Amino acid sequence: MERIPILRMGEFLLVTIQVDMHDQLALTLQDDLAERIRKTSAKGVMIDISALEIVDSFIGRMISTIAGVARIMDAETVLVGMQPAVAITLVELGLSLPGVTTALDAERGMARLRKKMSAA
Amino acid sequence: MERIPILRMGEFLLVTIQVDMHDQLALTLQDDLAERIRKTSAKGVMIDISALEIVDSFIGRMISTIAGVARIMDAETVLVGMQPAVAITLVELGLSLPGVTTALDAERGMARLRKKMSAA
Repeated sequence: MERIPILRMGEFLLVTIQVDMHDQLALTLQDDLAERIRKTSAKGVMIDISALEIVDSFIGRMISTIAGVARIMDAETVLVGMQPAVAITLVELGLSLPGVTTALDAERGMARLRKKMSAA
Repeated sequence: MERIPILRMGEFLLVTIQVDMHDQLALTLQDDLAERIRKTSAKGVMIDISALEIVDSFIGRMISTIAGVARIMDAETVLVGMQPAVAITLVELGLSLPGVTTALDAERGMARLRKKMSAA
């Protein structure tokens, strides 16, 4: 497993994080995603973390960075599928994920992205 | 990592396989997927295997089984993102994935599912 797949779903890109992220994998994902946003002119990025039972400060920062990169490339980022325990841990760690929009599941995340796109 | 996430994207379900499948994980995925098809009345299932560099006969059979279960639950299955080397291996193994529709990427897989749904 060398890279996390990025799926193009219409106007947005979907990333499902299922594996433990290490430094190189996170950097590769950031690069791949920026490249795909450029290539596909995607207006939104959805990151699904429903498979993650633990989100540490490293992953939290990675998500914030991805959202920041996407934003300056004119794409919105929505984080979906966060487990309740993960939300608690993030707040306890002081990670409020600035600039990252969240939604309960992929269905709502899609709706959120569509709303943002139509408003833009 | 105990289960592979299943994302609902409108009328269909999306499964991205990124990790090595072992027996229990495959069985859990089959159960979860059948349950989600029932709950969501999904008309299609998209399985992305772009992250897999190796597909052995075990995964090949699992995909065929999932497609078979989905079909008798009135949902179409489309397999997307297969790497060329994987396609070669599958044919060499004699696994032609009967009953499984394939598409080059998620974008085309979605188009294929929509076409099938509108034809139904």
